[in-house]
Amino acid sequence: MAHDESAQNCIAEKIGNEALPEQGGRFKKQIEFIMEADKLKHTLRQTILLDRSRRENSAEHSWHIALTAMVLSEYARDKTIDIFRVVKMLLIHDLVEIDAGDTYCYDDRGREDQTRREELAADRIFNILPEDQARSFRKLWDEFESRKTPESRLANALDRLQPLLHNYFTEGKTWQENDVKKNQVETRMQPVEDGSSFLWSYVKALIDDAVEKDYLSE
Amino acid sequence: MAHDESAQNCIAEKIGNEALPEQGGRFKKQIEFIMEADKLKHTLRQTILLDRSRRENSAEHSWHIALTAMVLSEYARDKTIDIFRVVKMLLIHDLVEIDAGDTYCYDDRGREDQTRREELAADRIFNILPEDQARSFRKLWDEFESRKTPESRLANALDRLQPLLHNYFTEGKTWQENDVKKNQVETRMQPVEDGSSFLWSYVKALIDDAVEKDYLSE
Repeated sequence: MAHDESAQNCIAEKIGNEALPEQGGRFKKQIEFIMEADKLKHTLRQTILLDRSRRENSAEHSWHIALTAMVLSEYARDKTIDIFRVVKMLLIHDLVEIDAGDTYCYDDRGREDQTRREELAADRIFNILPEDQARSFRKLWDEFESRKTPESRLANALDRLQPLLHNYFTEGKTWQENDVKKNQVETRMQPVEDGSSFLWSYVKALIDDAVEKDYLSE
Repeated sequence: MAHDESAQNCIAEKIGNEALPEQGGRFKKQIEFIMEADKLKHTLRQTILLDRSRRENSAEHSWHIALTAMVLSEYARDKTIDIFRVVKMLLIHDLVEIDAGDTYCYDDRGREDQTRREELAADRIFNILPEDQARSFRKLWDEFESRKTPESRLANALDRLQPLLHNYFTEGKTWQENDVKKNQVETRMQPVEDGSSFLWSYVKALIDDAVEKDYLSE
């Protein structure tokens, strides 16, 4: 890394000890985690920005879907969900890509060992934090990955919806480049159905329309 | 814009009407807002990434400080604050830059009409949303800008802290390029004191250490 990690740690520990003695080691870990997170800005996804100028990175994607949760949470299947937990999941869900990279969703070979690579990454990255926070961040990530709670179902639905919107509104550019077919997109989008019946109707119509317009082939 | 806005609106409206008749126009506005937000990924800040490879954009910056709020909220002056409101403010606080651009904090001339430019931007951008959401997003943005509530004070503290960390850990690269002096940085960082006495001690020590290491001049 280009930045001076020892200086970073030293200052964070020193100040931590002076300002709040029992917190010194804790604060040092927190600053280290925040600096580590900066690396997610280098992880490029297959998705391109709407003006087609470049690929999207996982940090700005995470921001975009957290914002989307603020706008679309009313369409969740379960109306009593904890939206803050949805947002927190979306903010941390891609941090594992700092080590594991972004695996293109239609890359079947890459996806074979994706789970293992991402779990190793989660072990390393969340454990930079103080123990209590490491545990709670890991719990959020596991919840997101398991897609069993209403909150994680909505979070996953939004994580799938956003790249579909980008593909549709860039006329299927990355679908065509990667020779992706309609049935692959439908399978990939399936989690949207678990999160929101309303958004699922929208997704199905977008896919049909994409085929009709030749953005996507059957 | 490169993407087909009319198609976007048409599909969103059609599906909205079919799936939830009274929601058609509402959903169309929500999708339009989400697509508009993509533009924030093009707004470049003066801050550089820790590996110094490029400038940071305002979308990934917003993600980074929302994540930072999840990690550092325990240091807020007021221990009973609503962290979700802090996170929401951080997710939306820079959207006005889609129209107004990022004004470098040490650019005194640019800052003269910054408030006016950003208010015009807020009027346009938040009003893409349905009326109730436009009102609540604007209220959050006004709260952030006013720095009067404990939540907005913590949000502003984190928004100031992150670029300081980047400057410090890249050995003051953008400070030097813009001939920024210690007293300017101290003035700029003042809102950190209102948000967190603990983080303020840290900020003061980082600034002193930056001067000692010649990252920043007196």
